[in-house]
Amino acid sequence: MDERYDIAIIGSGPAGLSAAINARIRNKKFILFGNKSLSQKAEKAHRVDNYLGFYNLTGSELNQNFAKHIVAMDIEIQEEKINMVYTMGDYYSIMAGNQVYEATTVILATGVSFGKALKGEEQFLGRGVSYCATCDAALYREKVVAIIGHSPHEEAEAQFMSEIASKVYYIPLYKGEPHLGPEIEIIRDIPVEIMGNQKVSALTLKNEIIEVDGVFILKEAVSPGQLVPGIKMDGNHIEVDRKMRTNLPGCFAAGDIVGAPYQFIKAAGEGNIAALTAVAYIDELKRKVKEN
Amino acid sequence: MDERYDIAIIGSGPAGLSAAINARIRNKKFILFGNKSLSQKAEKAHRVDNYLGFYNLTGSELNQNFAKHIVAMDIEIQEEKINMVYTMGDYYSIMAGNQVYEATTVILATGVSFGKALKGEEQFLGRGVSYCATCDAALYREKVVAIIGHSPHEEAEAQFMSEIASKVYYIPLYKGEPHLGPEIEIIRDIPVEIMGNQKVSALTLKNEIIEVDGVFILKEAVSPGQLVPGIKMDGNHIEVDRKMRTNLPGCFAAGDIVGAPYQFIKAAGEGNIAALTAVAYIDELKRKVKEN
Repeated sequence: MDERYDIAIIGSGPAGLSAAINARIRNKKFILFGNKSLSQKAEKAHRVDNYLGFYNLTGSELNQNFAKHIVAMDIEIQEEKINMVYTMGDYYSIMAGNQVYEATTVILATGVSFGKALKGEEQFLGRGVSYCATCDAALYREKVVAIIGHSPHEEAEAQFMSEIASKVYYIPLYKGEPHLGPEIEIIRDIPVEIMGNQKVSALTLKNEIIEVDGVFILKEAVSPGQLVPGIKMDGNHIEVDRKMRTNLPGCFAAGDIVGAPYQFIKAAGEGNIAALTAVAYIDELKRKVKEN
Repeated sequence: MDERYDIAIIGSGPAGLSAAINARIRNKKFILFGNKSLSQKAEKAHRVDNYLGFYNLTGSELNQNFAKHIVAMDIEIQEEKINMVYTMGDYYSIMAGNQVYEATTVILATGVSFGKALKGEEQFLGRGVSYCATCDAALYREKVVAIIGHSPHEEAEAQFMSEIASKVYYIPLYKGEPHLGPEIEIIRDIPVEIMGNQKVSALTLKNEIIEVDGVFILKEAVSPGQLVPGIKMDGNHIEVDRKMRTNLPGCFAAGDIVGAPYQFIKAAGEGNIAALTAVAYIDELKRKVKEN
Protein backbone atom coordinates (compact mmCIF):
# COMPACT_ATOMS: atom_id res chain seq x y z
CA MET A 1 0.00 0.00 0.00
CA ASP A 2 1.38 3.34 -1.04
CA GLU A 3 1.04 6.39 1.10
CA ARG A 4 -2.33 8.06 0.88
CA TYR A 5 -2.84 10.63 -1.88
CA ASP A 6 -4.53 13.96 -1.30
CA ILE A 7 -6.45 13.68 -4.56
CA ALA A 8 -7.18 10.82 -6.94
CA ILE A 9 -8.30 12.10 -10.31
CA ILE A 10 -10.09 9.58 -12.48
CA GLY A 11 -10.17 10.49 -16.15
CA SER A 12 -7.72 12.04 -18.61
CA GLY A 13 -10.03 14.20 -20.68
CA PRO A 14 -9.98 18.01 -20.36
CA ALA A 15 -11.71 17.91 -16.95
CA GLY A 16 -9.23 15.46 -15.42
CA LEU A 17 -6.19 17.20 -16.93
CA SER A 18 -7.38 20.61 -15.81
CA ALA A 19 -7.91 19.24 -12.30
CA ALA A 20 -4.41 17.74 -12.37
CA ILE A 21 -2.60 20.95 -13.33
CA ASN A 22 -4.40 22.80 -10.55
CA ALA A 23 -3.56 20.05 -8.04
CA ARG A 24 0.09 20.38 -9.12
CA ILE A 25 0.09 24.17 -8.77
CA ARG A 26 -1.42 23.86 -5.31
CA ASN A 27 1.26 21.33 -4.30
CA LYS A 28 -1.09 18.47 -3.57
CA LYS A 29 -0.05 14.84 -3.70
CA PHE A 30 -2.22 13.42 -6.43
CA ILE A 31 -2.57 10.54 -8.84
CA LEU A 32 -4.17 10.80 -12.26
CA PHE A 33 -5.78 7.69 -13.74
CA GLY A 34 -6.56 7.60 -17.43
CA ASN A 35 -5.31 6.94 -20.88
CA LYS A 36 -1.93 8.22 -22.06
CA SER A 37 -3.55 9.05 -25.39
CA LEU A 38 -5.92 11.33 -23.44
CA SER A 39 -9.57 11.79 -24.34
CA GLN A 40 -10.57 9.47 -27.17
CA LYS A 41 -13.61 11.62 -27.74
CA ALA A 42 -11.45 14.72 -28.24
CA GLU A 43 -9.06 12.73 -30.43
CA LYS A 44 -11.90 11.99 -32.83
CA ALA A 45 -13.22 15.57 -33.10
CA HIS A 46 -12.69 16.87 -36.63
CA ARG A 47 -12.52 20.49 -35.67
CA VAL A 48 -12.84 22.46 -32.46
CA ASP A 49 -13.44 26.21 -32.70
CA ASN A 50 -14.80 27.04 -29.30
CA TYR A 51 -11.93 26.37 -26.95
CA LEU A 52 -11.03 30.00 -26.28
CA GLY A 53 -7.44 30.69 -27.33
CA PHE A 54 -7.25 27.92 -29.93
CA TYR A 55 -8.96 28.42 -33.26
CA ASN A 56 -9.52 25.86 -35.98
CA LEU A 57 -7.73 22.93 -34.42
CA THR A 58 -8.57 19.27 -34.76
CA GLY A 59 -9.39 17.45 -31.55
CA SER A 60 -6.10 15.65 -31.94
CA GLU A 61 -4.14 18.92 -32.17
CA LEU A 62 -5.95 20.21 -29.10
CA ASN A 63 -5.01 17.00 -27.28
CA GLN A 64 -1.39 17.59 -28.27
CA ASN A 65 -1.49 20.99 -26.63
CA PHE A 66 -2.98 19.42 -23.52
CA ALA A 67 -0.30 16.73 -23.55
CA LYS A 68 2.49 19.34 -23.85
CA HIS A 69 0.99 21.18 -20.89
CA ILE A 70 0.95 18.21 -18.56
CA VAL A 71 4.38 17.02 -19.66
CA ALA A 72 5.76 20.51 -18.92
CA MET A 73 4.31 20.19 -15.42
CA ASP A 74 5.67 16.67 -14.90
CA ILE A 75 2.25 15.11 -14.64
CA GLU A 76 2.02 11.42 -15.41
CA ILE A 77 -1.01 9.39 -16.30
CA GLN A 78 -1.48 6.06 -14.58
CA GLU A 79 -2.98 3.67 -17.12
CA GLU A 80 -5.14 1.58 -14.87
CA LYS A 81 -8.79 0.84 -15.16
CA ILE A 82 -10.70 1.81 -12.05
CA ASN A 83 -13.28 -0.75 -11.04
CA MET A 84 -14.65 0.66 -7.85
CA VAL A 85 -14.33 3.64 -5.54
CA TYR A 86 -15.40 3.06 -1.95
CA THR A 87 -16.07 5.68 0.70
CA MET A 88 -14.08 4.79 3.81
CA GLY A 89 -15.18 7.64 6.07
CA ASP A 90 -12.40 10.19 5.83
CA TYR A 91 -10.80 8.77 2.70
CA TYR A 92 -11.55 6.74 -0.40
CA SER A 93 -10.35 3.31 -1.55
CA ILE A 94 -9.82 3.11 -5.27
CA MET A 95 -9.75 -0.38 -6.74
CA ALA A 96 -7.63 -0.52 -9.87
CA GLY A 97 -7.26 -4.08 -11.13
CA ASN A 98 -5.71 -5.87 -8.15
CA GLN A 99 -4.15 -2.67 -6.79
CA VAL A 100 -5.78 -0.56 -4.11
CA TYR A 101 -5.06 3.15 -3.84
CA GLU A 102 -6.09 5.46 -1.03
CA ALA A 103 -6.92 9.13 -1.42
CA THR A 104 -8.47 11.75 0.83
CA THR A 105 -10.49 13.12 -2.06
CA VAL A 106 -11.60 11.84 -5.45
CA ILE A 107 -12.38 13.81 -8.59
CA LEU A 108 -14.51 11.85 -11.03
CA ALA A 109 -13.95 12.93 -14.62
CA THR A 110 -14.62 9.80 -16.61
CA GLY A 111 -16.91 11.34 -19.21
CA VAL A 112 -20.31 10.02 -20.15
CA SER A 113 -20.88 6.44 -21.02
CA PHE A 114 -23.77 6.39 -23.40
CA GLY A 115 -24.59 2.73 -22.75
CA LYS A 116 -27.74 1.88 -20.88
CA ALA A 117 -27.65 -0.72 -18.14
CA LEU A 118 -28.89 -4.17 -19.06
CA LYS A 119 -32.19 -5.26 -17.55
CA GLY A 120 -31.34 -6.93 -14.23
CA GLU A 121 -27.78 -5.55 -14.24
CA GLU A 122 -28.18 -3.21 -11.29
CA GLN A 123 -30.51 -5.57 -9.46
CA PHE A 124 -27.96 -8.40 -9.43
CA LEU A 125 -24.81 -6.30 -9.01
CA GLY A 126 -22.68 -8.11 -6.42
CA ARG A 127 -25.00 -11.13 -6.60
CA GLY A 128 -23.72 -12.62 -9.83
CA VAL A 129 -23.08 -9.45 -11.83
CA SER A 130 -19.56 -8.04 -11.84
CA TYR A 131 -17.55 -5.49 -13.81
CA CYS A 132 -14.12 -6.91 -13.09
CA ALA A 133 -12.99 -10.46 -13.81
CA THR A 134 -9.60 -9.88 -12.18
CA CYS A 135 -11.33 -8.83 -8.96
CA ASP A 136 -14.09 -11.39 -8.71
CA ALA A 137 -12.88 -14.45 -10.66
CA ALA A 138 -12.19 -16.41 -7.46
CA LEU A 139 -15.90 -16.40 -6.62
CA TYR A 140 -16.64 -18.40 -9.77
CA ARG A 141 -14.27 -21.34 -9.38
CA GLU A 142 -15.79 -24.34 -11.17
CA LYS A 143 -18.85 -22.31 -12.10
CA VAL A 144 -20.40 -21.18 -15.36
CA VAL A 145 -20.01 -17.55 -16.38
CA ALA A 146 -20.95 -15.35 -19.30
CA ILE A 147 -18.67 -12.48 -20.24
CA ILE A 148 -20.10 -9.59 -22.21
CA GLY A 149 -17.16 -7.86 -23.85
CA HIS A 150 -17.56 -4.32 -25.16
CA SER A 151 -14.11 -4.19 -26.78
CA PRO A 152 -11.26 -6.53 -27.73
CA HIS A 153 -9.41 -5.29 -24.61
CA GLU A 154 -11.68 -7.52 -22.57
CA GLU A 155 -10.51 -10.76 -24.19
CA ALA A 156 -7.56 -11.07 -21.85
CA GLU A 157 -9.93 -11.10 -18.88
CA ALA A 158 -12.06 -13.77 -20.54
CA GLN A 159 -8.98 -15.89 -21.12
CA PHE A 160 -7.97 -15.50 -17.46
CA MET A 161 -11.50 -16.36 -16.35
CA SER A 162 -11.42 -19.60 -18.31
CA GLU A 163 -8.58 -20.86 -16.10
CA ILE A 164 -10.87 -20.67 -13.08
CA ALA A 165 -14.47 -21.19 -14.21
CA SER A 166 -15.73 -24.54 -15.46
CA LYS A 167 -17.27 -22.92 -18.51
CA VAL A 168 -16.97 -19.46 -20.09
CA TYR A 169 -19.35 -18.01 -22.65
CA TYR A 170 -18.01 -14.92 -24.40
CA ILE A 171 -20.44 -12.49 -26.02
CA PRO A 172 -18.52 -9.90 -28.02
CA LEU A 173 -20.40 -6.63 -28.64
CA TYR A 174 -17.97 -5.47 -31.30
CA LYS A 175 -17.00 -6.39 -34.83
CA GLY A 176 -14.05 -8.62 -35.57
CA GLU A 177 -13.19 -12.12 -34.46
CA PRO A 178 -12.20 -12.51 -30.77
CA HIS A 179 -8.83 -14.16 -30.20
CA LEU A 180 -9.67 -16.70 -27.52
CA GLY A 181 -8.75 -20.27 -26.68
CA PRO A 182 -11.04 -23.11 -27.94
CA GLU A 183 -12.31 -23.80 -24.41
CA ILE A 184 -14.24 -20.50 -24.52
CA GLU A 185 -17.56 -20.60 -26.32
CA ILE A 186 -18.16 -17.50 -28.38
CA ILE A 187 -21.81 -16.51 -28.82
CA ARG A 188 -22.75 -13.87 -31.39
CA ASP A 189 -25.99 -12.59 -29.91
CA ILE A 190 -27.43 -9.58 -28.10
CA PRO A 191 -27.86 -9.67 -24.30
CA VAL A 192 -31.39 -8.76 -23.22
CA GLU A 193 -31.79 -9.53 -19.52
CA ILE A 194 -29.99 -10.96 -16.55
CA MET A 195 -32.29 -13.28 -14.64
CA GLY A 196 -32.30 -15.02 -11.29
CA ASN A 197 -33.92 -15.19 -7.94
CA GLN A 198 -31.57 -14.42 -5.05
CA LYS A 199 -28.60 -14.70 -7.38
CA VAL A 200 -28.02 -14.78 -11.11
CA SER A 201 -29.19 -18.01 -12.75
CA ALA A 202 -29.40 -17.19 -16.44
CA LEU A 203 -28.64 -14.69 -19.17
CA THR A 204 -31.33 -14.11 -21.75
CA LEU A 205 -30.01 -13.32 -25.20
CA LYS A 206 -32.09 -12.37 -28.18
CA ASN A 207 -32.05 -15.89 -29.60
CA GLU A 208 -31.41 -18.16 -26.62
CA ILE A 209 -31.20 -18.39 -22.86
CA ILE A 210 -27.98 -19.62 -21.26
CA GLU A 211 -27.79 -20.87 -17.68
CA VAL A 212 -24.96 -19.16 -15.83
CA ASP A 213 -23.82 -18.47 -12.26
CA GLY A 214 -22.32 -15.13 -13.10
CA VAL A 215 -22.34 -12.39 -15.72
CA PHE A 216 -19.30 -10.18 -16.23
CA ILE A 217 -19.97 -6.97 -18.09
CA LEU A 218 -16.63 -5.65 -19.25
CA LYS A 219 -16.25 -2.22 -20.80
CA GLU A 220 -13.84 0.70 -20.71
CA ALA A 221 -16.06 2.89 -18.57
CA VAL A 222 -18.54 1.80 -15.99
CA SER A 223 -21.38 4.14 -15.18
CA PRO A 224 -20.66 6.45 -12.26
CA GLY A 225 -23.47 5.03 -10.14
CA GLN A 226 -21.80 1.65 -10.41
CA LEU A 227 -18.27 3.01 -9.96
CA VAL A 228 -18.99 4.83 -6.71
CA PRO A 229 -21.64 3.16 -4.58
CA GLY A 230 -23.89 5.70 -2.89
CA ILE A 231 -23.21 8.57 -5.27
CA LYS A 232 -26.27 10.63 -6.12
CA MET A 233 -27.19 10.71 -9.77
CA ASP A 234 -29.36 13.03 -11.80
CA GLY A 235 -30.44 10.77 -14.63
CA ASN A 236 -27.25 9.55 -16.30
CA HIS A 237 -25.12 12.24 -14.69
CA ILE A 238 -23.60 12.77 -11.29
CA GLU A 239 -25.41 15.49 -9.38
CA VAL A 240 -23.07 18.31 -8.33
CA ASP A 241 -23.42 21.81 -7.00
CA ARG A 242 -21.64 24.83 -8.45
CA LYS A 243 -18.50 23.93 -6.49
CA MET A 244 -18.52 20.49 -8.20
CA ARG A 245 -19.33 18.74 -4.92
CA THR A 246 -21.23 15.46 -5.10
CA ASN A 247 -23.38 14.19 -2.23
CA LEU A 248 -20.33 12.33 -0.84
CA PRO A 249 -18.00 14.54 1.22
CA GLY A 250 -14.59 14.70 -0.45
CA CYS A 251 -15.89 13.34 -3.73
CA PHE A 252 -16.09 15.81 -6.61
CA ALA A 253 -16.96 15.45 -10.29
CA ALA A 254 -16.33 17.46 -13.45
CA GLY A 255 -16.78 17.34 -17.19
CA ASP A 256 -19.27 15.41 -19.30
CA ILE A 257 -20.04 13.15 -16.34
CA VAL A 258 -21.91 15.99 -14.62
CA GLY A 259 -24.01 16.88 -17.65
CA ALA A 260 -24.28 18.82 -20.89
CA PRO A 261 -23.02 20.87 -22.64
CA TYR A 262 -20.42 18.26 -23.61
CA GLN A 263 -17.71 20.76 -24.46
CA PHE A 264 -13.98 20.75 -23.82
CA ILE A 265 -13.74 24.25 -22.41
CA LYS A 266 -16.67 23.63 -20.08
CA ALA A 267 -15.02 20.43 -18.86
CA ALA A 268 -11.67 22.17 -18.34
CA GLY A 269 -13.37 24.95 -16.38
CA GLU A 270 -15.13 22.45 -14.16
CA GLY A 271 -11.89 20.52 -13.60
CA ASN A 272 -10.38 23.75 -12.32
CA ILE A 273 -13.27 24.31 -9.90
CA ALA A 274 -13.29 20.69 -8.71
CA ALA A 275 -9.54 20.75 -7.97
CA LEU A 276 -9.73 24.02 -6.06
CA THR A 277 -12.73 22.82 -4.06
CA ALA A 278 -10.85 19.61 -3.27
CA VAL A 279 -7.80 21.62 -2.17
CA ALA A 280 -9.94 23.72 0.16
CA TYR A 281 -11.54 20.55 1.54
CA ILE A 282 -8.15 18.95 2.22
CA ASP A 283 -6.74 22.07 3.84
CA GLU A 284 -9.81 22.31 6.07
CA LEU A 285 -9.45 18.64 7.09
CA LYS A 286 -5.76 19.15 7.95
CA ARG A 287 -6.59 22.24 9.97
CA LYS A 288 -9.19 20.29 11.95
CA VAL A 289 -6.77 17.42 12.59
CA LYS A 290 -4.20 19.91 13.92
CA GLU A 291 -6.76 21.46 16.25
CA ASN A 292 -7.75 18.11 17.77
CA MET B 1 -32.85 51.87 -33.08
CA ASP B 2 -31.05 48.89 -34.59
CA GLU B 3 -32.72 45.59 -35.12
CA ARG B 4 -32.96 43.47 -32.00
CA TYR B 5 -30.01 41.22 -31.17
CA ASP B 6 -30.42 37.62 -30.08
CA ILE B 7 -27.72 38.00 -27.46
CA ALA B 8 -26.02 40.99 -25.85
CA ILE B 9 -22.79 39.96 -24.14
CA ILE B 10 -21.46 42.44 -21.61
CA GLY B 11 -17.79 41.98 -20.80
CA SER B 12 -14.67 41.12 -22.79
CA GLY B 13 -12.82 38.90 -20.35
CA PRO B 14 -12.55 35.14 -20.91
CA ALA B 15 -16.23 34.56 -20.01
CA GLY B 16 -17.55 37.15 -22.47
CA LEU B 17 -15.19 36.08 -25.27
CA SER B 18 -16.00 32.42 -24.79
CA ALA B 19 -19.72 33.27 -24.91
CA ALA B 20 -19.14 35.27 -28.10
CA ILE B 21 -17.33 32.51 -30.00
CA ASN B 22 -20.13 30.10 -29.13
CA ALA B 23 -22.78 32.62 -30.19
CA ARG B 24 -20.93 32.96 -33.52
CA ILE B 25 -20.69 29.21 -34.04
CA ARG B 26 -24.40 28.88 -33.32
CA ASN B 27 -25.19 31.64 -35.87
CA LYS B 28 -26.83 33.99 -33.43
CA LYS B 29 -27.03 37.73 -33.96
CA PHE B 30 -25.06 39.11 -31.04
CA ILE B 31 -23.25 42.18 -29.82
CA LEU B 32 -20.24 42.11 -27.53
CA PHE B 33 -19.63 45.10 -25.26
CA GLY B 34 -16.24 45.52 -23.65
CA ASN B 35 -12.75 46.75 -24.00
CA LYS B 36 -10.69 46.17 -27.14
CA SER B 37 -7.68 45.50 -24.92
CA LEU B 38 -9.72 42.67 -23.34
CA SER B 39 -9.55 41.78 -19.67
CA GLN B 40 -7.39 44.22 -17.78
CA LYS B 41 -7.12 41.74 -14.96
CA ALA B 42 -5.74 39.09 -17.31
CA GLU B 43 -3.43 41.65 -18.87
CA LYS B 44 -1.81 42.24 -15.49
CA ALA B 45 -1.30 38.57 -14.58
CA HIS B 46 2.42 37.78 -14.44
CA ARG B 47 2.07 34.14 -15.25
CA VAL B 48 -0.79 31.78 -15.91
CA ASP B 49 -0.13 28.04 -15.72
CA ASN B 50 -3.57 26.61 -15.29
CA TYR B 51 -5.35 27.42 -18.53
CA LEU B 52 -5.26 23.91 -19.98
CA GLY B 53 -3.38 23.89 -23.29
CA PHE B 54 -1.23 26.95 -22.55
CA TYR B 55 1.70 26.61 -20.18
CA ASN B 56 3.80 29.36 -18.70
CA LEU B 57 2.24 32.32 -20.46
CA THR B 58 1.84 35.83 -19.12
CA GLY B 59 -1.70 37.11 -18.86
CA SER B 60 -0.89 39.41 -21.73
CA GLU B 61 0.23 36.52 -23.96
CA LEU B 62 -2.92 34.63 -23.07
CA ASN B 63 -4.97 37.70 -24.01
CA GLN B 64 -3.15 37.80 -27.36
CA ASN B 65 -4.26 34.24 -28.04
CA PHE B 66 -7.81 35.18 -27.13
CA ALA B 67 -7.61 38.23 -29.39
CA LYS B 68 -6.35 36.12 -32.32
CA HIS B 69 -9.23 33.74 -31.79
CA ILE B 70 -11.97 36.36 -31.91
CA VAL B 71 -10.35 38.17 -34.85
CA ALA B 72 -10.25 34.87 -36.74
CA MET B 73 -13.98 34.54 -36.13
CA ASP B 74 -14.74 38.15 -37.13
CA ILE B 75 -15.94 39.12 -33.70
CA GLU B 76 -15.80 42.80 -32.85
CA ILE B 77 -15.88 44.44 -29.49
CA GLN B 78 -18.16 47.44 -29.03
CA GLU B 79 -16.38 49.86 -26.72
CA GLU B 80 -19.33 51.33 -24.91
CA LYS B 81 -19.94 51.58 -21.23
CA ILE B 82 -23.18 49.94 -20.20
CA ASN B 83 -25.12 51.94 -17.66
CA MET B 84 -28.25 49.94 -17.21
CA VAL B 85 -29.96 46.80 -18.40
CA TYR B 86 -33.73 46.76 -18.12
CA THR B 87 -36.05 43.76 -18.39
CA MET B 88 -38.77 44.58 -20.92
CA GLY B 89 -40.73 41.34 -20.72
CA ASP B 90 -39.54 39.28 -23.65
CA TYR B 91 -36.40 41.29 -24.31
CA TYR B 92 -33.86 43.56 -22.63
CA SER B 93 -33.03 47.23 -23.12
CA ILE B 94 -29.36 47.96 -22.76
CA MET B 95 -28.46 51.57 -22.07
CA ALA B 96 -25.01 52.42 -23.39
CA GLY B 97 -24.29 56.12 -23.03
CA ASN B 98 -27.11 57.75 -24.99
CA GLN B 99 -27.57 54.68 -27.19
CA VAL B 100 -30.18 52.03 -26.49
CA TYR B 101 -29.73 48.45 -27.69
CA GLU B 102 -32.31 45.69 -27.61
CA ALA B 103 -31.55 42.03 -27.15
CA THR B 104 -33.64 38.95 -26.49
CA THR B 105 -31.07 37.64 -24.04
CA VAL B 106 -28.22 39.14 -22.04
CA ILE B 107 -25.05 37.48 -20.80
CA LEU B 108 -23.44 39.39 -17.95
CA ALA B 109 -19.70 38.82 -17.80
CA THR B 110 -18.38 42.04 -16.32
CA GLY B 111 -16.13 40.50 -13.70
CA VAL B 112 -16.10 41.42 -10.05
CA SER B 113 -15.92 44.97 -8.96
CA PHE B 114 -14.10 44.97 -5.67
CA GLY B 115 -15.46 48.33 -4.60
CA LYS B 116 -17.97 48.44 -1.80
CA ALA B 117 -21.05 50.58 -2.13
CA LEU B 118 -21.01 53.87 -0.28
CA LYS B 119 -23.25 54.16 2.75
CA GLY B 120 -26.62 55.41 1.45
CA GLU B 121 -25.72 54.64 -2.17
CA GLU B 122 -28.21 51.84 -2.70
CA GLN B 123 -30.83 53.46 -0.50
CA PHE B 124 -30.93 56.64 -2.61
CA LEU B 125 -30.38 55.06 -6.03
CA GLY B 126 -32.84 56.77 -8.38
CA ARG B 127 -33.63 59.34 -5.69
CA GLY B 128 -30.58 61.51 -6.08
CA VAL B 129 -27.93 58.86 -6.71
CA SER B 130 -27.03 58.08 -10.31
CA TYR B 131 -24.28 56.26 -12.19
CA CYS B 132 -24.64 58.08 -15.49
CA ALA B 133 -24.42 61.84 -15.96
CA THR B 134 -25.27 61.57 -19.64
CA CYS B 135 -28.49 59.75 -18.79
CA ASP B 136 -29.71 61.74 -15.82
CA ALA B 137 -28.21 65.23 -16.19
CA ALA B 138 -31.54 66.74 -17.25
CA LEU B 139 -32.99 65.99 -13.82
CA TYR B 140 -30.46 68.31 -12.19
CA ARG B 141 -30.98 71.50 -14.17
CA GLU B 142 -30.08 74.44 -11.93
CA LYS B 143 -29.35 72.09 -9.06
CA VAL B 144 -26.25 71.25 -7.04
CA VAL B 145 -24.52 67.96 -7.70
CA ALA B 146 -21.44 66.13 -6.48
CA ILE B 147 -19.60 63.87 -8.88
CA ILE B 148 -17.40 61.13 -7.45
CA GLY B 149 -14.98 60.18 -10.21
CA HIS B 150 -13.12 56.89 -10.01
CA SER B 151 -10.92 57.60 -13.03
CA PRO B 152 -9.93 60.50 -15.31
CA HIS B 153 -12.38 59.07 -17.90
CA GLU B 154 -15.18 60.57 -15.82
CA GLU B 155 -14.00 64.18 -16.19
CA ALA B 156 -15.81 64.60 -19.50
CA GLU B 157 -19.09 63.76 -17.80
CA ALA B 158 -18.39 66.25 -15.05
CA GLN B 159 -17.70 68.93 -17.64
CA PHE B 160 -20.96 68.15 -19.42
CA MET B 161 -22.82 68.22 -16.11
CA SER B 162 -21.51 71.70 -15.34
CA GLU B 163 -23.39 73.03 -18.38
CA ILE B 164 -26.67 72.00 -16.81
CA ALA B 165 -26.33 72.07 -13.03
CA SER B 166 -25.99 75.30 -11.10
CA LYS B 167 -23.00 73.96 -9.21
CA VAL B 168 -20.76 70.90 -9.63
CA TYR B 169 -18.41 69.52 -6.99
CA TYR B 170 -15.91 67.00 -8.35
CA ILE B 171 -14.33 64.51 -5.96
CA PRO B 172 -11.57 62.60 -7.77
CA LEU B 173 -10.70 59.21 -6.25
CA TYR B 174 -7.47 58.93 -8.21
CA LYS B 175 -4.08 60.53 -8.31
CA GLY B 176 -3.24 63.33 -10.74
CA GLU B 177 -4.83 66.69 -11.33
CA PRO B 178 -8.29 66.65 -13.00
CA HIS B 179 -8.56 68.74 -16.16
CA LEU B 180 -11.76 70.64 -15.56
CA GLY B 181 -13.10 74.14 -16.14
CA PRO B 182 -12.82 76.68 -13.29
CA GLU B 183 -16.59 76.58 -12.69
CA ILE B 184 -16.21 73.08 -11.23
CA GLU B 185 -15.07 72.91 -7.62
CA ILE B 186 -12.59 70.10 -7.04
CA ILE B 187 -12.61 68.63 -3.53
CA ARG B 188 -9.81 66.31 -2.45
CA ASP B 189 -11.57 64.28 0.20
CA ILE B 190 -13.02 60.82 0.84
CA PRO B 191 -16.78 60.23 0.51
CA VAL B 192 -18.29 58.59 3.58
CA GLU B 193 -22.07 58.68 3.32
CA ILE B 194 -24.90 59.91 1.15
CA MET B 195 -27.57 61.48 3.31
CA GLY B 196 -31.14 62.63 2.87
CA ASN B 197 -34.69 62.01 3.78
CA GLN B 198 -36.91 61.19 0.80
CA LYS B 199 -34.21 62.35 -1.57
CA VAL B 200 -30.51 63.08 -1.35
CA SER B 201 -29.75 66.29 0.55
CA ALA B 202 -26.06 66.04 1.38
CA LEU B 203 -22.81 64.16 0.87
CA THR B 204 -20.69 63.57 3.93
CA LEU B 205 -16.98 63.58 3.25
CA LYS B 206 -14.28 62.76 5.75
CA ASN B 207 -13.58 66.42 6.48
CA GLU B 208 -16.75 68.27 5.54
CA ILE B 209 -20.39 67.93 4.59
CA ILE B 210 -21.61 69.39 1.31
CA GLU B 211 -25.26 70.10 0.56
CA VAL B 212 -26.23 68.61 -2.78
CA ASP B 213 -29.35 67.56 -4.70
CA GLY B 214 -27.63 64.71 -6.44
CA VAL B 215 -24.58 62.46 -6.25
CA PHE B 216 -23.14 60.90 -9.38
CA ILE B 217 -20.84 57.95 -8.75
CA LEU B 218 -18.90 57.39 -11.95
CA LYS B 219 -16.71 54.34 -12.43
CA GLU B 220 -15.84 51.85 -15.15
CA ALA B 221 -17.90 49.03 -13.74
CA VAL B 222 -21.06 49.30 -11.75
CA SER B 223 -22.03 46.43 -9.48
CA PRO B 224 -24.34 43.90 -11.09
CA GLY B 225 -27.20 44.60 -8.69
CA GLN B 226 -27.11 48.21 -9.84
CA LEU B 227 -26.60 47.37 -13.51
CA VAL B 228 -29.62 45.07 -13.77
CA PRO B 229 -32.50 46.06 -11.50
CA GLY B 230 -34.20 43.02 -10.01
CA ILE B 231 -31.34 40.59 -10.47
CA LYS B 232 -30.85 38.21 -7.57
CA MET B 233 -27.50 38.44 -5.84
CA ASP B 234 -25.64 36.07 -3.56
CA GLY B 235 -23.48 38.48 -1.61
CA ASN B 236 -21.37 40.35 -4.15
CA HIS B 237 -22.08 37.84 -6.90
CA ILE B 238 -24.96 37.14 -9.21
CA GLU B 239 -26.78 33.97 -8.23
CA VAL B 240 -26.87 31.44 -11.06
CA ASP B 241 -27.71 27.77 -11.45
CA ARG B 242 -25.48 25.24 -13.20
CA LYS B 243 -26.84 26.37 -16.57
CA MET B 244 -25.73 29.95 -15.76
CA ARG B 245 -29.32 31.16 -15.52
CA THR B 246 -30.04 34.10 -13.24
CA ASN B 247 -33.45 34.68 -11.66
CA LEU B 248 -34.43 36.80 -14.71
CA PRO B 249 -35.59 34.72 -17.71
CA GLY B 250 -33.25 35.28 -20.64
CA CYS B 251 -30.55 36.83 -18.47
CA PHE B 252 -27.44 34.73 -17.91
CA ALA B 253 -24.13 35.39 -16.18
CA ALA B 254 -20.65 33.89 -16.31
CA GLY B 255 -17.14 34.39 -14.99
CA ASP B 256 -15.92 36.16 -11.87
CA ILE B 257 -19.27 37.92 -11.56
CA VAL B 258 -20.92 34.64 -10.48
CA GLY B 259 -18.30 33.81 -7.87
CA ALA B 260 -14.93 32.26 -7.07
CA PRO B 261 -12.66 30.65 -8.14
CA TYR B 262 -11.56 33.71 -10.12
CA GLN B 263 -9.80 31.77 -12.84
CA PHE B 264 -9.62 32.27 -16.59
CA ILE B 265 -10.41 28.69 -17.55
CA LYS B 266 -13.39 28.58 -15.18
CA ALA B 267 -14.69 31.83 -16.69
CA ALA B 268 -14.23 30.54 -20.25
CA GLY B 269 -16.06 27.33 -19.39
CA GLU B 270 -18.94 29.26 -17.90
CA GLY B 271 -19.10 31.58 -20.92
CA ASN B 272 -19.55 28.48 -23.06
CA ILE B 273 -22.39 27.20 -20.89
CA ALA B 274 -24.10 30.61 -20.72
CA ALA B 275 -24.01 31.02 -24.50
CA LEU B 276 -25.40 27.56 -25.16
CA THR B 277 -28.14 28.04 -22.58
CA ALA B 278 -28.99 31.38 -24.20
CA VAL B 279 -29.12 29.73 -27.63
CA ALA B 280 -31.50 27.06 -26.35
CA TYR B 281 -33.64 29.77 -24.72
CA ILE B 282 -33.84 31.78 -27.97
CA ASP B 283 -34.64 28.72 -30.08
CA GLU B 284 -37.39 27.76 -27.67
CA LEU B 285 -38.86 31.30 -27.81
CA LYS B 286 -38.83 31.25 -31.63
CA ARG B 287 -40.49 27.85 -31.66
CA LYS B 288 -43.25 29.16 -29.37
CA VAL B 289 -43.79 32.26 -31.51
CA LYS B 290 -44.17 30.04 -34.58
CA GLU B 291 -46.73 27.86 -32.85
CA ASN B 292 -48.93 30.80 -31.86
